[in-house]
Amino acid sequence: MQLSARNQFCGTVKDVKLGAVMAEVAVDIGGQELVAAITRASAERLQLQRGDQVTALIKATEVLIGK
Amino acid sequence: MQLSARNQFCGTVKDVKLGAVMAEVAVDIGGQELVAAITRASAERLQLQRGDQVTALIKATEVLIGK
Amino acid sequence: MQLSARNQFCGTVKDVKLGAVMAEVAVDIGGQELVAAITRASAERLQLQRGDQVTALIKATEVLIGK
Amino acid sequence: MQLSARNQFCGTVKDVKLGAVMAEVAVDIGGQELVAAITRASAERLQLQRGDQVTALIKATEVLIGK
Amino acid sequence: MQLSARNQFCGTVKDVKLGAVMAEVAVDIGGQELVAAITRASAERLQLQRGDQVTALIKATEVLIGK
Amino acid sequence: MQLSARNQFCGTVKDVKLGAVMAEVAVDIGGQELVAAITRASAERLQLQRGDQVTALIKATEVLIGK
Repeated sequence: MQLSARNQFCGTVKDVKLGAVMAEVAVDIGGQELVAAITRASAERLQLQRGDQVTALIKATEVLIGK
Repeated sequence: MQLSARNQFCGTVKDVKLGAVMAEVAVDIGGQELVAAITRASAERLQLQRGDQVTALIKATEVLIGK
Repeated sequence: MQLSARNQFCGTVKDVKLGAVMAEVAVDIGGQELVAAITRASAERLQLQRGDQVTALIKATEVLIGK
Repeated sequence: MQLSARNQFCGTVKDVKLGAVMAEVAVDIGGQELVAAITRASAERLQLQRGDQVTALIKATEVLIGK
Repeated sequence: MQLSARNQFCGTVKDVKLGAVMAEVAVDIGGQELVAAITRASAERLQLQRGDQVTALIKATEVLIGK
Repeated sequence: MQLSARNQFCGTVKDVKLGAVMAEVAVDIGGQELVAAITRASAERLQLQRGDQVTALIKATEVLIGK
C-alpha cells in the first residue's frame, strides 16, 4: 500500500514509553530523534520495541515552519 | 522562545509552491525532503523562498508509525 | 506494513477535486462518504481516480466526540 | 450548530478507557469501530459511557489515503 | 450537541477567502484574530460570510506551547 | 524565529497536569482558558509551571468552525 503522507522517514525504535492510554515512541532516523505519541493499544498491536525497523509518517498539513 | 514541539528539524527551503489559500514548502533536511502545507498568507508573511534556513516543527501527536 | 493509525476504513474513490496545492478526495465507505484533504502532489503520486480501492487512515488523536 | 468538519459519523459508545490526562473512546459506527483519543477532562465533562449515542467528527485535513 | 473540543471560542467572521479546494476564514474573537483553514465545500455549506456569529473549535492535542 | 502558525495567543499558565506520557496545560489568555495537550517530556523540558508567560500556537488547518 502506498500512502498519501508526504513525509515518510525510516528509522529504528530507540525507546517505547507506555502510559495508560498513550505511548511515546522515540525513533532514530539517521542520527536524529523523531518522537511519536500514539495510543498504547497501537504500540501494543504493533508490538513496538527497541530495535524495530519502522517508518514515521507525517502529513504535510501537520508541519509548521519557523524562520 | 523554546517550543513544546518534540520534533524540530533544521533545513533549507528547496521550493515554495503557492495556491490561492495554501502553500507547499519543500525543505531539505540533511538530504531528505520534508514537505509542509501551510497557508499562503504564512508563506508570504515569512517571505519564504528557495535557500532560506528554516526549522520544520511537528507535534509528536501528529506522527504515525508503520512497521 | 502495519500502521499505528487506529482508524482504517476501506472504500472506493468517488471523486477527486484538484486545487493548486491541495486536493479533495471523496471516498465511499459502505454507503457513507468520507472526505480527505491531501496535497495535490500526493493525489497525483497515487494517481487517485474514481473507482480506486483505497484505505482512509485517521489517528485517534484527530477525532472529536459530540454528544 | 452546524460544523465545518466534513466527516461526521453517528454511533454508540462501546468503551471508555481513562488515563491520567487522556481518554480513549471506542465508538461503534454501523458495525465498524472508530477510536477517539480525547482528554480525560472532556470524557468526564461529556459523561461519556457505554451505550451513549455520539457523533465522531474528523476534519478532512486529518485523513490520509492509502492505495 | 456538546463537543469534546477543549477550546471553543465565539466570534464574528471578518473575512472568507475561497481557493479551489480550501478556504481561509478569519474570525474576530474579542479583538484577537483567529484563522481557520477549512475546505471550500465546508465554507459554502455553512454559507460563511462576513458578520456571521461562529464558534472556532480546537482540540487540545493540536496546541503547541512556546515559552 | 518567526513561526508559520497563524494563531498565536499569549497568556499565563494556570495549571499543569502530568500523566505518564501526556500533560495538560491550561493557559489563561485574556480571561479565556485555552488548553493544550502536549507530551509530559515537553512540559518538563520547558519546566512549565503556574504563572509562566507562554504563547499557545495553533495551525489554521487544525481549527473547526461551527455556525
